[in-house]
Amino acid sequence: VYRLIYWPTLQGRGEFVRLVLEDAGVPYDDVARRSESEGGGVAAVRALLHGQGKVMPGFAPPFLVHEELILAQMPVICAYLGQRHGLVPETETLRMRALQLQVTIADAVSEAHDTHHPVSSTLYYEDQKEAALRAASLFREQRLLLWLRYFDRVLEESGGPHLFGDRISYVDLALFQLTEGLCFSFPVTMKGALSGFPRITALRRAVAARPRLAGYLASERRIPFNQHGIFRHYPELDAPTG
Amino acid sequence: VYRLIYWPTLQGRGEFVRLVLEDAGVPYDDVARRSESEGGGVAAVRALLHGQGKVMPGFAPPFLVHEELILAQMPVICAYLGQRHGLVPETETLRMRALQLQVTIADAVSEAHDTHHPVSSTLYYEDQKEAALRAASLFREQRLLLWLRYFDRVLEESGGPHLFGDRISYVDLALFQLTEGLCFSFPVTMKGALSGFPRITALRRAVAARPRLAGYLASERRIPFNQHGIFRHYPELDAPTG
Repeated sequence: VYRLIYWPTLQGRGEFVRLVLEDAGVPYDDVARRSESEGGGVAAVRALLHGQGKVMPGFAPPFLVHEELILAQMPVICAYLGQRHGLVPETETLRMRALQLQVTIADAVSEAHDTHHPVSSTLYYEDQKEAALRAASLFREQRLLLWLRYFDRVLEESGGPHLFGDRISYVDLALFQLTEGLCFSFPVTMKGALSGFPRITALRRAVAARPRLAGYLASERRIPFNQHGIFRHYPELDAPTG
Repeated sequence: VYRLIYWPTLQGRGEFVRLVLEDAGVPYDDVARRSESEGGGVAAVRALLHGQGKVMPGFAPPFLVHEELILAQMPVICAYLGQRHGLVPETETLRMRALQLQVTIADAVSEAHDTHHPVSSTLYYEDQKEAALRAASLFREQRLLLWLRYFDRVLEESGGPHLFGDRISYVDLALFQLTEGLCFSFPVTMKGALSGFPRITALRRAVAARPRLAGYLASERRIPFNQHGIFRHYPELDAPTG
């Protein structure tokens, strides 16, 4: 059984891992969502983060524990799970390309996060709001379209509906989640932006309609987006396009 | 023969790839460093970046072209080359851990970059200097020690001198390069900070003393650090510790 260790009250980078586990339909223990008396809570994350016993599992959560393996880094965990559960493209060459795309999605996730925390993750939003207004404006007006255009072109090349054509992979789940997060953070901007990228919209729908994921997304296991995660909705950071 | 495509006038993320190629002692074509009349220059990077023909190789350079494979993303390229040239730890489990560490180093590299470009990569430093002063101060005083402490603990666990003990891997070359870059950017801060982490200093020396790398670092192939790359030295962003 897989053990996922991630902050219990937000989607964050852990959600990319959850989506792979849910789509694969494998049981997993979302450790920190148990109560502290049952070994869960923030304490479970901190124990690994600060080196539980002798092992230094990674710089930051999410962590995946599976048999002897303790793994960190969202793209690496997702690639590991995707490989084990058939959520990868067919050839080794394409699997390298999948990993590259996943790392690229992780970069986009970090950039989206940094729109509300441009100066430092150690400060509150309110203490860097002025810089956030500038950062978000430039993200909306310049960077966002570069990201969307890139993924759209990959979909165009593959022939769709997925990033590797007919066959779904963990990277499609990640692009779904990135887009969901951006739509939560920038609803006005994204409504306009996505209208230019029907292939991305089609991918979102295809992923959301997968039976296990549809069940998961409607369940209480899916933590709603909120103001503690990577993707946050500050209306002043969103704006109509054009 | 490998073809590396990266901006020709700076180390940047391409340098992590160059170090693996140089340490492996394999021939490679650093395409963009040839003149434009020989197919090099910035034009060579842009051709791939904007989708040369039908292929969309990645969101950003560096790109590695090897036979049919076109790969982007520094950690993925380095893992690919490390695997092919024996610069990886022995077991599959440890190789996943190596990849995780490399992605983590890439995160640290991005965070170091963002100290001088906190608001947006689309603005000049001078147009975000105020935010950069705050970002660099918090990086120096809080984040930098977290990063160094993490890598130090990994070295402690492995027994050193490398991140996987006796055996060198591509990740050691990356940690070397990260540390070199930080020392260029923050010479005063790093002089103080590194004194607390002799294992990291030992690793830096061990990597720099590897015969092929020592030759490379002294050669004209090694582009000096400068004010165009990821790691830049703005004296106002550096400061004595304590």
